[in-house]
Amino acid sequence: MLIDTQQQSLVTRLNRIEGQIRGIRRMVQEPRQCIEILQQLAAAEAALNRISLAVFKHHVDICVPEGAVLGPDETTRRLSELVDIFDRFSK
Amino acid sequence: MLIDTQQQSLVTRLNRIEGQIRGIRRMVQEPRQCIEILQQLAAAEAALNRISLAVFKHHVDICVPEGAVLGPDETTRRLSELVDIFDRFSK
Amino acid sequence: MLIDTQQQSLVTRLNRIEGQIRGIRRMVQEPRQCIEILQQLAAAEAALNRISLAVFKHHVDICVPEGAVLGPDETTRRLSELVDIFDRFSK
Amino acid sequence: MLIDTQQQSLVTRLNRIEGQIRGIRRMVQEPRQCIEILQQLAAAEAALNRISLAVFKHHVDICVPEGAVLGPDETTRRLSELVDIFDRFSK
Repeated sequence: MLIDTQQQSLVTRLNRIEGQIRGIRRMVQEPRQCIEILQQLAAAEAALNRISLAVFKHHVDICVPEGAVLGPDETTRRLSELVDIFDRFSK
Repeated sequence: MLIDTQQQSLVTRLNRIEGQIRGIRRMVQEPRQCIEILQQLAAAEAALNRISLAVFKHHVDICVPEGAVLGPDETTRRLSELVDIFDRFSK
Repeated sequence: MLIDTQQQSLVTRLNRIEGQIRGIRRMVQEPRQCIEILQQLAAAEAALNRISLAVFKHHVDICVPEGAVLGPDETTRRLSELVDIFDRFSK
Repeated sequence: MLIDTQQQSLVTRLNRIEGQIRGIRRMVQEPRQCIEILQQLAAAEAALNRISLAVFKHHVDICVPEGAVLGPDETTRRLSELVDIFDRFSK
């Protein structure tokens, strides 16, 4: 699981993305040019993706080794979950 | 530019994504399992991506043909912007 | 449609990717470490993606304007095809 | 590392992708419509991506647990490699 310092960093970054989404909503309402909206959507997707990378990194650095203490079955389970995650993100 | 009915549909969908981001922030704060957080991040990215597709579709269906009325240079400009957008999203 | 100089450039790049695929097959047969194989697969995907970008660019720079000469229906058809392409590549 | 049955399955799939690349080269040389070429490029990228998923799955199912036998440092090393791979593929 996530530890304190990481939680705070992730919360800050998620707040920023929430702000980006609200910004995009305003752009849709004005409305601004589609191309500008698409650029901001691409930026928000990239920011979300960087958060996913941070959580993935934490998972393999901390959570999978923690599972190892609980025995090989738990390690196997935690590793196999990664395949599903890789599949969703790699497309 | 976006027209009324589309603006409303996009605003509704962006509100939903804002809710998803807030949900992910709560999961980070509890904290929930990293895998569950990653699954929700993947879902939010996919939802943003579907919005991008809708805006892209509107752009090529409506904005590029509108540009055509303004002359070939404006069409060329609007089309060339698409290459940058394709580049950002296709990676 | 593609013109001569671009065809040659694309053929050269596709030959190089064919070489990359053969290299990956050799790595699988030796077999080499999975991580090394994954790095080469990522490189081949990125190379294919850059080719797609070049073809997309040619399409919007050359083919869509060519369609404009054939009338608004043909332009509409060529533009709407882009939405499907964007959808496939943006995921 | 990869085991026999998987090597054969991957070699077969890589041969098929090599055939797809050659097919795309022929389409470029004729030349065929850009949209058709883009569709085949998307199909080849998706096929490469499915191979990456199979290798990733093998890596976390077989290679990382194998590393566990060699001690915690080797496990840590094999897991940390996954972050780089996730980063390359998730963009």
